[in-house]
Amino acid sequence: MNHRLIAKSLGALLTIEAVCALPSLIISMTYNDGCAPAFTLFIISLTAAGLALNLIKPKSIEIYARDGFALVGFGWIVSAIFGALPFIISGVIPSVTDALFESVSGFTTTGASILAEVESLPKSIVFWRSFTSWMGGVGVLALMMAILPSVKANSIHIMQAEAPGPYVDKFTPRIAWVARILYVIYIGITLIEVILLLMGGMPLYDAVVHAMSTTSTGGFSSRNLSVGAYNSPYIEIVITIFMLLCGVNLSLYQMIPRGKINAILKDSETRFFIAVFICASLFVTIELAARNGESAPDAARHAAFQVSTLITSTGFSSVDFNKWPEFSKMVLIMVMFMGGCTGSTAGGIKCMRILLIFKILRNELAKILHPNSVHVTRLNGMPVEDSVLTGILSFFFLYMAVIAVSMLIISLDGFRLETTFTATLSAVSNMGPGLDMVGPMGNYSGFSDLSKIVLTVCMLLGRLEIFPILLLCAPSFWKQANK
Amino acid sequence: MNHRLIAKSLGALLTIEAVCALPSLIISMTYNDGCAPAFTLFIISLTAAGLALNLIKPKSIEIYARDGFALVGFGWIVSAIFGALPFIISGVIPSVTDALFESVSGFTTTGASILAEVESLPKSIVFWRSFTSWMGGVGVLALMMAILPSVKANSIHIMQAEAPGPYVDKFTPRIAWVARILYVIYIGITLIEVILLLMGGMPLYDAVVHAMSTTSTGGFSSRNLSVGAYNSPYIEIVITIFMLLCGVNLSLYQMIPRGKINAILKDSETRFFIAVFICASLFVTIELAARNGESAPDAARHAAFQVSTLITSTGFSSVDFNKWPEFSKMVLIMVMFMGGCTGSTAGGIKCMRILLIFKILRNELAKILHPNSVHVTRLNGMPVEDSVLTGILSFFFLYMAVIAVSMLIISLDGFRLETTFTATLSAVSNMGPGLDMVGPMGNYSGFSDLSKIVLTVCMLLGRLEIFPILLLCAPSFWKQANK
Repeated sequence: MNHRLIAKSLGALLTIEAVCALPSLIISMTYNDGCAPAFTLFIISLTAAGLALNLIKPKSIEIYARDGFALVGFGWIVSAIFGALPFIISGVIPSVTDALFESVSGFTTTGASILAEVESLPKSIVFWRSFTSWMGGVGVLALMMAILPSVKANSIHIMQAEAPGPYVDKFTPRIAWVARILYVIYIGITLIEVILLLMGGMPLYDAVVHAMSTTSTGGFSSRNLSVGAYNSPYIEIVITIFMLLCGVNLSLYQMIPRGKINAILKDSETRFFIAVFICASLFVTIELAARNGESAPDAARHAAFQVSTLITSTGFSSVDFNKWPEFSKMVLIMVMFMGGCTGSTAGGIKCMRILLIFKILRNELAKILHPNSVHVTRLNGMPVEDSVLTGILSFFFLYMAVIAVSMLIISLDGFRLETTFTATLSAVSNMGPGLDMVGPMGNYSGFSDLSKIVLTVCMLLGRLEIFPILLLCAPSFWKQANK
Repeated sequence: MNHRLIAKSLGALLTIEAVCALPSLIISMTYNDGCAPAFTLFIISLTAAGLALNLIKPKSIEIYARDGFALVGFGWIVSAIFGALPFIISGVIPSVTDALFESVSGFTTTGASILAEVESLPKSIVFWRSFTSWMGGVGVLALMMAILPSVKANSIHIMQAEAPGPYVDKFTPRIAWVARILYVIYIGITLIEVILLLMGGMPLYDAVVHAMSTTSTGGFSSRNLSVGAYNSPYIEIVITIFMLLCGVNLSLYQMIPRGKINAILKDSETRFFIAVFICASLFVTIELAARNGESAPDAARHAAFQVSTLITSTGFSSVDFNKWPEFSKMVLIMVMFMGGCTGSTAGGIKCMRILLIFKILRNELAKILHPNSVHVTRLNGMPVEDSVLTGILSFFFLYMAVIAVSMLIISLDGFRLETTFTATLSAVSNMGPGLDMVGPMGNYSGFSDLSKIVLTVCMLLGRLEIFPILLLCAPSFWKQANK
């Protein structure tokens, strides 16, 4: 393994992280919230560490899949560990476990919090929290471009067959080009949302925080009641629309300047995503209207907001859906499992995988009836390789296995099944809130340190789609790596 | 499709069912519990219907996979519908939905009940209930021999590569021979258990009921407190051992007369099953001793009993495990998912599938590290075909999908997640009890008729391993079937 190059790259990452803390420092100075020394110290130490690592001279610049995995895994872990420093130095979150939980929650775009109350906290710290998730979103896009294509079992491999534009090819010059387009789209969506939120009367600071948390599907809010605090249907509708826009494969948006909007709507995954969103919202709307006595427009707005926040793994809330009737909560749990589209920053199993698994099942049934005929699974008209299908099915099992093992450990805390289950699902799906104790009005502070660590690992597993982290844990990975 | 032959076969099935009701009739007369007229009417009408159908002359005796599926699906449904008649005619369960639930629960060897109280019921009816599950167990063995081998995605196909004796081949004379051995084993185990239970001081009637419910992994008891009512460690230990014996592939026992006991212990699936049993029991023992203050031997006995009853999907109880601490309950939920071995009457996903999925995952990881080398999944040293592996992974997804869809419908009743989830899991895994409202001291009477019907369908889906029932629902199955 090319240790030197990896260390050098991590150095570059730390330097970038230091630069990313500048807006928080400026906010701290603007609001004079007392965190400026903490951020100054953070920026100086990260820059120093980054530059020191950058002095390393790698023996070669060759990089293999193995190095890529190590880089991604450590990159995320190192960024999150250092990202926890402002919380600790400023004294806002004194516990290291808690600070790490909050930081990983940000960098993985989860949005789960151990903080019971955010409105009284220093504004720069709350901003940093949302900024970590926005950086995490950028990281996810980079990850999808550079590393995951080599993991057959992973989503991006599907994207190769799927992407309507130029194919994502491993380590070609096109990657830089595709990445640049994605970043322009990502930043563009954030800016447009900020403007629309300002038009709805949201203060600039709040608008930036919420726009960053929407685009990254992170879901950290600057208000205790999340989006519900504004009590504004306009703001709820804007955020609903932007959450959905960010749940779709971002690379599809490059079709818009070319005038091929139809191509977006013809994409199988996008159609599936929208269909599930509409069905789930309808179900919830009907129950809210019938059982909770809400008017149809109110019920529809609340349903659409909550379904879109959970299907895209954002995790805002406009009402306390933990108090909803059981059927609506069950619908929310189901969309939490599914998640958004590949090529977005959303978590969950991803629409593409679910869609392909349904196609596999149809083929399996056809095979039983006609054992001798050939059955090919297609997506957008293109055949999908068998090994990719096995990878997707394996991923589904792994996803469930991670949830099962984590629940087993977390159950030692003795909380109800609903709390243990939804907290775990929420962490693995990079969601944020769950139900019961971790509902939208609750938080994760009640868990033991062990459980918090398990949930932190779950967030990382979910974000990196499990396989890369598993590989880092495999002894054979390291054995051969050192040859 | 060969409709006439299927109808004729169903006729034969009804005649057998009529004969099977004779013991209940005799018990009814012995105890003079007032149900003799009900059973007499039942036997006469089933015999008449059976003989009438038997008069049908099929145009040919050719039978294809398609006919096999129809026969199995309808065979189970028809047996269960008619099996509900004694409950209705005797007036013990007046509701048709409830009677059907109880009957399907029996024939699928589930053991879930809508009855709050069984000790005051006519003895013949309680006997019939256990007898349906015993017959269901016989049916499962027949099913595994005759029909499932043609379903690639199904467990028995694995058994073909797995069975240590003569290979199960579709419709060969050997089937009759293998089936006969299995039936001898099945009946033999039942008889030995009856004798051992009698030696423990259990009354004959109770011993027969419990032995039938153990061998079939059904779990219906004649006592309200299930096995806990006897308050006898001896009885608990005997039943624990027999539940485990019946959770193993029954065809392995044919090695015993040949003196090859080692071959049983060398079987991968059996080893995996035993390893999971030991680990789960240990976990629970430690928690019961540490948190509930039970003495180590008591904790171990209670843990072993409850883990074996849930891992084999029997569903007896010796204590109210619903009151156990959360970690122990979580362990029980995990073993409920897994279930017993293929070739047994146990439900659940089955050890073989879980074991193979772990092997697939190891290969997937190896593939990422070494994309160009060849990776073969092996079981007991024999390679397993890729199509079988895809089938197993698909089955796992289907299993989860069935649970998800059922939970969605059942949640309309508004019960807590713990009730809805464990009731559904219990039905699909052919278990019996769940937790919370459907815990070992609870029952299923609180659900709406809609939920009871959904749970009834779940039990059938679980028993027939989903694919055959799905096929019966596929329009293309019937379209081509009528050609």
